[in-house]
Amino acid sequence: METAAGTHDFYHFLLDLAIILISTKVFGIFSKRIRMPQVVGALVAGVVMGPALLGVIHETDFIKKLAELGVIVLMFSAGMEIDLKEMKNSGKSGLATAAMGVLLPIVGGFLVAGAFNGGFANMDQKTFLQNVFIGVVLTATSVSITVETLKELGHLNSKSGTIILSAALIDDVLGIVLLTIVTGMSDTSVSLWPVLLKIVLFFLFAGVVGFIFYKVFERLTGEQRERRRYVLVAFSFCLILAWIAEAWFGVADITGAFIAGLVLSNTRQVHFINRRFDILSYILIAPMFFASVGLSIEKVDLSWSLLLLTVVLLVVAILSKILGCGLGARLSGCNTKESIQVGTGMVSRGEVALIVANKGLALGLMPALFTAPLILVVVVTTIVTPIMLKMVYPAKQTL
Amino acid sequence: METAAGTHDFYHFLLDLAIILISTKVFGIFSKRIRMPQVVGALVAGVVMGPALLGVIHETDFIKKLAELGVIVLMFSAGMEIDLKEMKNSGKSGLATAAMGVLLPIVGGFLVAGAFNGGFANMDQKTFLQNVFIGVVLTATSVSITVETLKELGHLNSKSGTIILSAALIDDVLGIVLLTIVTGMSDTSVSLWPVLLKIVLFFLFAGVVGFIFYKVFERLTGEQRERRRYVLVAFSFCLILAWIAEAWFGVADITGAFIAGLVLSNTRQVHFINRRFDILSYILIAPMFFASVGLSIEKVDLSWSLLLLTVVLLVVAILSKILGCGLGARLSGCNTKESIQVGTGMVSRGEVALIVANKGLALGLMPALFTAPLILVVVVTTIVTPIMLKMVYPAKQTL
Repeated sequence: METAAGTHDFYHFLLDLAIILISTKVFGIFSKRIRMPQVVGALVAGVVMGPALLGVIHETDFIKKLAELGVIVLMFSAGMEIDLKEMKNSGKSGLATAAMGVLLPIVGGFLVAGAFNGGFANMDQKTFLQNVFIGVVLTATSVSITVETLKELGHLNSKSGTIILSAALIDDVLGIVLLTIVTGMSDTSVSLWPVLLKIVLFFLFAGVVGFIFYKVFERLTGEQRERRRYVLVAFSFCLILAWIAEAWFGVADITGAFIAGLVLSNTRQVHFINRRFDILSYILIAPMFFASVGLSIEKVDLSWSLLLLTVVLLVVAILSKILGCGLGARLSGCNTKESIQVGTGMVSRGEVALIVANKGLALGLMPALFTAPLILVVVVTTIVTPIMLKMVYPAKQTL
Repeated sequence: METAAGTHDFYHFLLDLAIILISTKVFGIFSKRIRMPQVVGALVAGVVMGPALLGVIHETDFIKKLAELGVIVLMFSAGMEIDLKEMKNSGKSGLATAAMGVLLPIVGGFLVAGAFNGGFANMDQKTFLQNVFIGVVLTATSVSITVETLKELGHLNSKSGTIILSAALIDDVLGIVLLTIVTGMSDTSVSLWPVLLKIVLFFLFAGVVGFIFYKVFERLTGEQRERRRYVLVAFSFCLILAWIAEAWFGVADITGAFIAGLVLSNTRQVHFINRRFDILSYILIAPMFFASVGLSIEKVDLSWSLLLLTVVLLVVAILSKILGCGLGARLSGCNTKESIQVGTGMVSRGEVALIVANKGLALGLMPALFTAPLILVVVVTTIVTPIMLKMVYPAKQTL
């Protein structure tokens, strides 16, 4: 009913949504035609439509929040699909995988950063920290794209899929600890032990609250009358746990959402609920997330030295995860094929690394020189992960 | 992964979403218990949680846009559920209903405004326009709440339901024309005829594009392989038509969405598609819309004269629609019972009147004195409409 020209901007989000939905689907269909996961197409759609290429869509607060909601629902859904018994068996493997997959990228990132950031001979403390920070950025695994790809390939519940999920969960915790240590050293206002304590407290809190929620939910959902409200209760639980993780404990919201999904994974209504979130995802919020990763890329002027740095960082980023996580998986009893699958699944960096890098930039922990290469590393690892996963996993019948 | 305190605000929307989902559902269940439509509870939840009472949630840009998306999907869904043949039969009734339902509120609003705004004896041109404007605000029917209620009661496809929908569509157009005339007289920058021409052109445009889309969609959806993409294509079409309505023709976005739904209403896949949007609505965006109506209410200091004005405006707002639209329906062949049903269904003002009032305030067309009473009128008509509908429609078996 609003007709004034000045209100045009408010309605512009409708066009943005339509363009994102259409372009991610069209590129997705295309990538399926050339036998790649649809996620790749959706990511490329964001890059093409965003400021890096056509500039048709720019990331707005609305798109960012819908995208965040997309990641949360994706992780919630991933949690619901976890087989907890299988998870228990793979917990140790997950720990070994995550630890090795954090160690190698830190060392690799530190070495590359040192070489391009004044050398190792006269490294002062600030430069040392900066170089470590580049390593920390490289540790941040973003498992959402892997989850979506493994879902599409039908291997999310395989042994390696479960290890990837538990390793990513642990990786998330290790990443927060590392980020806190490095940022804590750059700034006296954050101290290490309270942060570690908070992380431990969050898991205790989530465990207790999750157990109570599980018991109450199972009792209440005996009747089967109005299943819609179960879906809303489950969703609200997920949103609140995600928010509490961030607001009270400084833990990533997606960790909260994932644990909420885990809590629901053993309930009677889990299939009904998960199916609803699957629909919510594909109609609206999952495309927002995938497109937003691409949208966050600005135009970059590449010089030869920058190109060299990018390529070296990229190779280190990919190999350090494949080798590190693969080694961790191998050490904890996987065969070679499964180890490679695990390592490959952990390559994707996604939005988490972007957020970490952004934070470092704000704190003066990251030389501006590294911004563009790191963004490119994030994008390329995110795009190649589904392609590589497709290569290392056997093809399955799709529906 | 973001742990800094400064980013707390970004994640706050998760808590807002959870509170809105929980409160609208809890209040909805409660209103169902006392035999009222759940929508009433959802609206009250917004008032209670919003700045008018508890102040737990404030309307953000994100909530506003999700709410707008909620209205659009609601109208899209309503369009898909329209039986076009039935609509053709009720087009004339719709026109008579809408015309009478616009005439009476204008006259009523003008009289009330005149009485409280300096009397009729020495009314200058500006005051005259202001008084007419109050009348115009009262004409704006918001049919979304009625649609949701009739859906819940199972009477959306009844004769009176169809008349309400077509009358509301025409009312929307008449409302835009009136708003344009009044604002056009207050400001020389907007002229009447180009606006009228634009409205006519929009319907021509929508008709042609809709026909082409229908033909292409029916051809493409013959295969039945990947029905998910039909849903995305339909949604994109709806979003684009809604955007085009606003951006190119200055017509309400919900009108575009409604017409997009109409175009799909005769396709083979309409039931599958509509079911998906039903899920999207109840999981996320419909609660946002209903809550946002309540959230838009600020705290109001009521004096006795303000209270009197509010009560008089409210009575005029309700009676002028019931009598006006009822008379229109009666004149075009409805029996008394159906006429009352139609009149009752048109009482709700909702967000449209709020937007119009807001616009008038910005243009100096509405004395500040009327702001609080008009907001209350909007809220109360919106809340009483489902209650009254429940009284004038026979009960049906619910699922």
